[in-house]
Amino acid sequence: MAELSPSRRIRRTPFSEGVEAAGVKAYTVYNRMLLPTIFESTEADYHHLKSAVQVWDVACERQVELRGPDAGRLMQMLTPRDLSAVEPGQCVYVPITDETGGMLNDPLALKLQEDHWSISIADSDLLLWVKGIGYGFQLDVLIGEPDVNLAAVQGPKADALMKRVFGDAVADLRFFRFGRFDFQGREMVISRSGYSRQGGFEIYVEGADRAMPLWHALFEAGADLDVRAGCPNLIERIEGGLLSYGNDMTADNTPYECGLGALCRPETAIGCIGRDALLRAGKSRPTQQIRPLEITGGKVPLCDRAWPLLAGEEQVGQVTSAVWSPDFEVNVAIGMLRMTHWAPGTELQVETPEGRFDVLVRDGFWL
Amino acid sequence: MAELSPSRRIRRTPFSEGVEAAGVKAYTVYNRMLLPTIFESTEADYHHLKSAVQVWDVACERQVELRGPDAGRLMQMLTPRDLSAVEPGQCVYVPITDETGGMLNDPLALKLQEDHWSISIADSDLLLWVKGIGYGFQLDVLIGEPDVNLAAVQGPKADALMKRVFGDAVADLRFFRFGRFDFQGREMVISRSGYSRQGGFEIYVEGADRAMPLWHALFEAGADLDVRAGCPNLIERIEGGLLSYGNDMTADNTPYECGLGALCRPETAIGCIGRDALLRAGKSRPTQQIRPLEITGGKVPLCDRAWPLLAGEEQVGQVTSAVWSPDFEVNVAIGMLRMTHWAPGTELQVETPEGRFDVLVRDGFWL
Repeated sequence: MAELSPSRRIRRTPFSEGVEAAGVKAYTVYNRMLLPTIFESTEADYHHLKSAVQVWDVACERQVELRGPDAGRLMQMLTPRDLSAVEPGQCVYVPITDETGGMLNDPLALKLQEDHWSISIADSDLLLWVKGIGYGFQLDVLIGEPDVNLAAVQGPKADALMKRVFGDAVADLRFFRFGRFDFQGREMVISRSGYSRQGGFEIYVEGADRAMPLWHALFEAGADLDVRAGCPNLIERIEGGLLSYGNDMTADNTPYECGLGALCRPETAIGCIGRDALLRAGKSRPTQQIRPLEITGGKVPLCDRAWPLLAGEEQVGQVTSAVWSPDFEVNVAIGMLRMTHWAPGTELQVETPEGRFDVLVRDGFWL
Repeated sequence: MAELSPSRRIRRTPFSEGVEAAGVKAYTVYNRMLLPTIFESTEADYHHLKSAVQVWDVACERQVELRGPDAGRLMQMLTPRDLSAVEPGQCVYVPITDETGGMLNDPLALKLQEDHWSISIADSDLLLWVKGIGYGFQLDVLIGEPDVNLAAVQGPKADALMKRVFGDAVADLRFFRFGRFDFQGREMVISRSGYSRQGGFEIYVEGADRAMPLWHALFEAGADLDVRAGCPNLIERIEGGLLSYGNDMTADNTPYECGLGALCRPETAIGCIGRDALLRAGKSRPTQQIRPLEITGGKVPLCDRAWPLLAGEEQVGQVTSAVWSPDFEVNVAIGMLRMTHWAPGTELQVETPEGRFDVLVRDGFWL
């Protein structure tokens, strides 16, 4: 791998000091911010995530905050998911689409109050889209990126660790719900959510000055739980079928192609952008869709570009994420497949920079 | 430096194959795409850029294309620069501002035809802003990111090399003008522009399939000119006062603070977004502005965050880019300074992660 040149433009986070002290070895750049990718090694980090508890610097999940009388209207314009029944205290995974139904982001949105939403974004400058829409439609809403930085606590021992720092009540949070908890005399929003299948929480740290005190408190409280610095893990997230915006989907794809059709209700999501295109797209099954894939024949290289999926010599799709899984002893992968070849059990080949490998279409992720 | 983890989300470019073969050592990520930063070393690359000719993969300067009856109207909405006199064939450097006059990008825009513009963007997803505005105002314009990838040819021998590949006429291009030239039977737009002070061209390569043939043609034609793969060089760009969006300015700054006030005419730029705020800001001098700075007392570390500028113990600004210059034997730097301390000759100190250094405010860049 090549090195990453530091500059102010690739923003550090309020947790970077802790990440560096923990011996981070590699990063990616996410929303023009540093996101750690490797501490010990991808495989060692993976085994640890599945057995203990990790603290993640996910400040790169920047917040787009909507506040004011038109906040709810604007939030509903942004997504074909029907938000009419969402209550304050609830998190919702919302496909964000452009006027043609193309995916612009796939964030988690928190309804903080009736007129106050916070969108925890994936890797695109969604703030610019939201500001452009708000300005164009002259909506009565404040739109901005607040000084809020997320830490995630993930792994089977996440509840145990969080209870020690925030009290037993934090463990009562249901999935995709959030609450407000005290930390050193100030309130923090905490949700039961996160980019792994191991369970855990995301902590919305308001004010950069509170980041390192929280970081240290979590490590001090969890020493006997083998708490370590970690990060979203490529192997674990593919096994678990967690999609990655920019990898597994782009603005070329509709939510239906991404398997998110069940979330879309353009017919009742009042004013949603992309309504016409999505009503049309929703009338029939998409002609291509994301599928879990098993790749055999040895470890695949790092997947840094879309790899063509072949039926004979005909391209029928592409692999967008792939890595060797130590637990399943196979390469776990995610790809976009044409409907003619997406049936579970279909055998294909994939063309990688290191040659062809055999592929089997699965009917589900590994979890 | 830590490593950069590859993934499809950090897009390769159609020139990546050539960049890798040339032995790239480090990258940055720019518009979610790879941008090389080091081949031999920052200093060796710098000496070579100033004495010979380099071919740069700057495909990360993504294009935002506006086409249709309202293209000109939308282009003028995006910037407080008055575009009424710009002719087809001309490039213009345009500050792009939000409704409060904050900088969203500082791209070069090409007026291809009366109803056709292409914006060559700096590091923010400007496409989302432009699409949001176009959609909100229901403008009659197509907005998209075409399959256009830029290569730059920069250095004192750039004219010599370009003439061999595109014919003598290419050398007649005036600064910030573009023309259309034949390459292997297809037309390419070429402008006299680029992110260095050494002179040169930018080639708008339409169609990814043409990228590597062009790359090879440039290297074959320039072997005796010592042509090498290169990239925007940190030292050379600071010496030359070329600002970097995300480093030297962000959405917090107005064009006036960035020293771009002379380009702004909010009073005549019909419909420009941020007009009210910019008219107000333009009535008086800004209270802070970008200045060239000389830092003495040994080589500074890599500047990966804003460094506080101090007058005694009072913070009066920040350094946003800095590096050791072999030619000037001093650290060349760019910073944002309060008006109380921006007079040339003012002596300050800067707080870096490796301690304090002395700073002198200069009256001009080094060039």
